[in-house]
Amino acid sequence: MNVEQQYLLLPGPTPVPPSVLRAMSKPMINHRGTEFRQLLEEVTAGIKKIYQTDNDLVIFPAAGSGAMEAAVVNFISPGDKVLAVSIGVFGDRFAKIAGEFGAQVEKVNSPWGEAADPDQIQDILRADNGHDIKVVLVTHNETSTGVVNDIKAIKKAMGNHPALLLVDAVSGLGAMDLKTDEWNLDVVVSGSQKAFMLPPGLSFMSVSPRAIEAAKECKNHKFYWDLENALKYAQRGQTPYTPAISLFFGLQEALNLMLEEGLENIIARHAAYREMVRTGIKAMGLNLLVQDPVASSSVTSVLAPGGLGANKIRRSLLERFGVVVAGGQQRLDDFIFRIGHLGFVRPLDLLSALTALEIILYENDFPIEIGQGTREVQKMFVIKEDALNE
Amino acid sequence: MNVEQQYLLLPGPTPVPPSVLRAMSKPMINHRGTEFRQLLEEVTAGIKKIYQTDNDLVIFPAAGSGAMEAAVVNFISPGDKVLAVSIGVFGDRFAKIAGEFGAQVEKVNSPWGEAADPDQIQDILRADNGHDIKVVLVTHNETSTGVVNDIKAIKKAMGNHPALLLVDAVSGLGAMDLKTDEWNLDVVVSGSQKAFMLPPGLSFMSVSPRAIEAAKECKNHKFYWDLENALKYAQRGQTPYTPAISLFFGLQEALNLMLEEGLENIIARHAAYREMVRTGIKAMGLNLLVQDPVASSSVTSVLAPGGLGANKIRRSLLERFGVVVAGGQQRLDDFIFRIGHLGFVRPLDLLSALTALEIILYENDFPIEIGQGTREVQKMFVIKEDALNE
Repeated sequence: MNVEQQYLLLPGPTPVPPSVLRAMSKPMINHRGTEFRQLLEEVTAGIKKIYQTDNDLVIFPAAGSGAMEAAVVNFISPGDKVLAVSIGVFGDRFAKIAGEFGAQVEKVNSPWGEAADPDQIQDILRADNGHDIKVVLVTHNETSTGVVNDIKAIKKAMGNHPALLLVDAVSGLGAMDLKTDEWNLDVVVSGSQKAFMLPPGLSFMSVSPRAIEAAKECKNHKFYWDLENALKYAQRGQTPYTPAISLFFGLQEALNLMLEEGLENIIARHAAYREMVRTGIKAMGLNLLVQDPVASSSVTSVLAPGGLGANKIRRSLLERFGVVVAGGQQRLDDFIFRIGHLGFVRPLDLLSALTALEIILYENDFPIEIGQGTREVQKMFVIKEDALNE
Repeated sequence: MNVEQQYLLLPGPTPVPPSVLRAMSKPMINHRGTEFRQLLEEVTAGIKKIYQTDNDLVIFPAAGSGAMEAAVVNFISPGDKVLAVSIGVFGDRFAKIAGEFGAQVEKVNSPWGEAADPDQIQDILRADNGHDIKVVLVTHNETSTGVVNDIKAIKKAMGNHPALLLVDAVSGLGAMDLKTDEWNLDVVVSGSQKAFMLPPGLSFMSVSPRAIEAAKECKNHKFYWDLENALKYAQRGQTPYTPAISLFFGLQEALNLMLEEGLENIIARHAAYREMVRTGIKAMGLNLLVQDPVASSSVTSVLAPGGLGANKIRRSLLERFGVVVAGGQQRLDDFIFRIGHLGFVRPLDLLSALTALEIILYENDFPIEIGQGTREVQKMFVIKEDALNE
């Protein structure tokens, strides 16, 4: 099958709308000229709507991990105590970056597949009478497991503790609700290749006034990620160094699409995707890694049945049907596969993937009837009163 | 739903591969220069492979109907007697063009949904002792009904009668076997927006040596479609007037894709698509317009169930699921809908469309169980010995 016929169901990169690809093929412009200034202002305003914030926001030509590093080096000085809340690979990564830049990292881990416990965070911060903890790091959507943390509750659990809350919302923002201002989130980072429907290469960081003040006192090594410099340049409609202009053109179009659909509708659509996938998986008799209440709207982790490795299933999905799903990371490798369902994905694409999965399970002697899971997902589409109360 | 997320299941235009779209965005070149000559030679050679011919072949910047007109004006003189074999809208169109240009048209019609009868053609030609009939017009794949004519048998039925056989293979060529040389077909026309996976705008005409000789004697009004002139220009790697250069770039890439897949594989794939769609439709309890032995691999006509108009089904498919299928033409309007399955279509796209159709039927109180048709199509994908002999 032609690689361009694949159903790309990863938790990023996600399918890029053709109109975004077209926008990206515009000729280069002067990044110190009027056109770029207008472009930067427009896309910054658009991203802020998705962030639900009036805070300042900077755009880095970088992967999401770049913005995570930007969050670290602008708000954490060497020697600072940091509480790193980790529920998986990306929580660990945030902690690791902080450690790499000299922080004293206290980690609080949840078992992979579970969410962070706000009470535990509350207890730790209450015990920190001297306010030694300067920063709390937390993941919004843990891509490696498909768990969404309750960021609102975590912020609330921090009470009056003055630590800054730095949120990695790379794979969750735009797919699930994240009220940056209403929840009073200091720093939120995200990336282009997830709900923003762009190719990888841009990342975003919103910063509250309090965070900007804190950054001024921060002593750490930085040049590329320097917030103060980025904000200074943003004032005159520029970036400190050359921006990825094509991706900005794409971002402009992607934001047009997102704002036209409306954030509420986007969030509802992703929640419906989550329900479709989970319903199908359950109806096939497979197990989900994550319990319903903390399940992500971006990605769903499926436990491979005993004796049938996740990577074999993934290979079959790709080779037989052109369906691309992600594998498990680190210790979850071959135990789970992850179905991404965010961005420019169509409902029938997800149904197709489930249909294909069902066929592969059947062929591999998993006890399943053809149609058993697919049928239940189909039923979710039915609009008819009392239709399915049989 | 974004228009660019539609599942385009028409009998043309068909989905265009992204690599073809990219190829079409190349800058213009001089159509009287070396690059264009090489391009023209390469694509002409490629199309001939799909045509299975060593005959000369010309490319017109025009819709398929343009090449049909080209066939008429180059081989039929005013007053010539023409036998027009029609099994639907496009057979009628071929006859109409001939009439418009002064031919005495004798039509032989089959009921819509049936194929032409070679015996009937044989009888008519045998009775034409004076060889008054100069040309026989026939449709390879009748797009309006989804019937494929047995072109080999029709040619054979012509026996030693000297009439030229002009074949409209616009929607069939490249999806179903058509052996231009082996079957000794004089003139075969086709178009870009079907199995060739291009946007509309190019059409092709192959001409046998005998047809070229006949064209020299032909007296009819022509400028744009002038074969002799086109062949003369082709000798020096040009076209008589400005070619649609972007479509040529796209054609080059489309032919790369086609020749890489291989004609036999392409034909087998389209036959499998036909079987998938027909199996699903039958399993849903719907009726097909066309019987199995003459069913097209390009498009399948489905009879709408009583009380539920085809156009309502089409509207629901589009609005609810982004699935675009064609309606019935002329007297079949609202009685049938047509599922196109040619070109750059993926198997799971067809399964998706059937799944969606099943849901819509269910919602409209058609006696069907959710999964009833989908399941049977899913089973066709299963690769497992004795898997489904339950």
